[in-house]
Amino acid sequence: MKKNIAVLRGDGVGKEVSKGAIEVLKTIGQQFGHEFHFQYGLIGGEAIDTEGTPLPQETVDVCKQSDAVLLGAVGGPKWDQNPAYLRPEKGLLQIRKALNLFANIRPVTTYNALTDISPLKQDIIEGVDFVIVRELTGGLYFGKPSGRSVDENGEETVVDTLQYKRSEMERIIYKAFEMAQTRRKKVTSVDKANVLESSRMWREVAEGISKEFPEVELEHMLVDNAAMQLIRYPKQFDVVVTENMFGDILSDEASMLTGSMGMLPSASLSSDGPSLYEPIHGSAPDIAGKNIANPIATILSAAMMLRLSFGMEKEAKAIERAVDQVISAGHRTADIQRAGKSPVQTTEIIDQIKAAL
Amino acid sequence: MKKNIAVLRGDGVGKEVSKGAIEVLKTIGQQFGHEFHFQYGLIGGEAIDTEGTPLPQETVDVCKQSDAVLLGAVGGPKWDQNPAYLRPEKGLLQIRKALNLFANIRPVTTYNALTDISPLKQDIIEGVDFVIVRELTGGLYFGKPSGRSVDENGEETVVDTLQYKRSEMERIIYKAFEMAQTRRKKVTSVDKANVLESSRMWREVAEGISKEFPEVELEHMLVDNAAMQLIRYPKQFDVVVTENMFGDILSDEASMLTGSMGMLPSASLSSDGPSLYEPIHGSAPDIAGKNIANPIATILSAAMMLRLSFGMEKEAKAIERAVDQVISAGHRTADIQRAGKSPVQTTEIIDQIKAAL
Ligand SMILES: CC(C)[C@H](C(=O)O)[C@@H](O)C(=O)O
Ligand SMILES: CC(C)[C@H](C(=O)O)[C@@H](O)C(=O)O
Repeated sequence: MKKNIAVLRGDGVGKEVSKGAIEVLKTIGQQFGHEFHFQYGLIGGEAIDTEGTPLPQETVDVCKQSDAVLLGAVGGPKWDQNPAYLRPEKGLLQIRKALNLFANIRPVTTYNALTDISPLKQDIIEGVDFVIVRELTGGLYFGKPSGRSVDENGEETVVDTLQYKRSEMERIIYKAFEMAQTRRKKVTSVDKANVLESSRMWREVAEGISKEFPEVELEHMLVDNAAMQLIRYPKQFDVVVTENMFGDILSDEASMLTGSMGMLPSASLSSDGPSLYEPIHGSAPDIAGKNIANPIATILSAAMMLRLSFGMEKEAKAIERAVDQVISAGHRTADIQRAGKSPVQTTEIIDQIKAAL
Repeated sequence: MKKNIAVLRGDGVGKEVSKGAIEVLKTIGQQFGHEFHFQYGLIGGEAIDTEGTPLPQETVDVCKQSDAVLLGAVGGPKWDQNPAYLRPEKGLLQIRKALNLFANIRPVTTYNALTDISPLKQDIIEGVDFVIVRELTGGLYFGKPSGRSVDENGEETVVDTLQYKRSEMERIIYKAFEMAQTRRKKVTSVDKANVLESSRMWREVAEGISKEFPEVELEHMLVDNAAMQLIRYPKQFDVVVTENMFGDILSDEASMLTGSMGMLPSASLSSDGPSLYEPIHGSAPDIAGKNIANPIATILSAAMMLRLSFGMEKEAKAIERAVDQVISAGHRTADIQRAGKSPVQTTEIIDQIKAAL
């Protein structure tokens, strides 16, 4: 097969880790007889510096013409004092909106080889295997009004708006049920229905869609309880679906089950065009350029791309197996290395994974 | 001293655990020569059943005339299908508003005797000692508009509003700095400033107030990162301050550090009247009436009342020591008992704690 992949390397470690994913994709291409073409686009801080905007139109065009998008990470202290519209994260939010990336899929799988580096006890995390399905283009992230004003008593007030249309809830919850059907057939819908109107509607929509999937069990869980259950007994989860901000918080929390954010990939699925794949970690400016970042989350994101955008299940599995083999053999970057053992560099891990393919 | 304490026992285990706190307070009163008068008020499901509203005016009056309020817990499946205004939780939200309980204080301290029941590894939780200061009367919980409508395309839409006045941010952040000054002098302000306008204002207000406390270190942390750091390295925290919904999620998550919600007390401080003390757990309908609930969170809430509302530090310490002694001796309810050991009943634990005083 022939596929065009848009690559947005971004800032900080984004460049180093996306390089790893590209090399692995090239190796897979050679081995399985696929042609992957890579086209590069600017996003985030680098785009602000060179183009004056965190998401140039050209980047959107490159993405729209691609079959899938690979993203590194954006952001850094250099742009932290910028006004909101000139911040790297704005580029990320804008590309999500521009490509209609409504469904962020974050698998949480623990590696037995890594239970020693997790802050959680081994019996809690062994065998954990669930997916967080996070709504990505609605809620507090995009609702209007969002801004400050002066109230009737002359006092400064600020609002953000948590907004959802019924159809936005439907498509993401539908996606979660579809995924559950190919897995252990359980959907945990997370909301705050004892406080929020939007959550009460969310619950109603979830009930409605569950009627179309009689073989899938639907469970509702309050977000505060979910934050607790994720560490208390994570094996109870199969597919967790929730709105944008709750998903942001819960999926970062869940990343600790594996011991390092450096291990977790994500897919952001589009309703009508190419999907986007990125590690869940950020640009980690403190370690950028030192050749010590863990490229595995991005490499596993490339595997998700092969599986979900290109239907290349065998190829995706090959990458996942290679990663497993390399970390089981003890080749690990600093974030996942055992105490007393010396960590391996970014480029070395990439070479090891290519060799294991 | 002579003090009037309003008691809102609520529903489910609320009745059993508040009984424990009352008995312990009576014992303390005898030992230290204080007169505690208890006056009872209805709230939650029971109030809905008997008065047709989750918070009768009479209850508000009883609270306002008291020196401090003790609350058990509200809610249960019986009222889950009720419309929003007739749900037990509404009573809780209304009493917070009626008494101006703007600051919810949740200490998170781990007991060495209980490290075996936490899902986290011992070296992560040993010696953890921080406080979450959660804003309790603003944000998404009370902002208007909150409701459904039909948009210009005829589609159902819903909004909730995250709203804050500058003065509401100031008083809670000020409280956090005051507390930090009597502790390890570090405030972690949690927000989502890379996305929310309200968070950007929150950060600005925090910076302003930090100028009045030059000896206290201020650190900003994004809420997704905070959800991670709480389990990755909880010892880094001293005082964590955040808005209402973020605080709801993070404090329930943090409760897992101790291994059981049954251990964690809370205080909700008023700006202008009596403060309220309650366990952070809910009414646990599944175990209600079985005499197996853990009363310690409520008993420790009574200790917080003595300390924060009545200035009775010695008396508070006496309760905390008694609790420590009882659990160290292995007398524990089911939620915190070691595997293989038989759990102790609610009333037994209460008697043990009284005996240890
Ligand atoms: C960088 C930030 C805007 C983003 C988000 O909040 O969505 C990030 O935390 C993520 O989860 O992808
Ligand atoms: C019962 C519910 C409304 C409440 C809240 O969300 O504040 C509870 O979770 C709490 O934390 O006290």
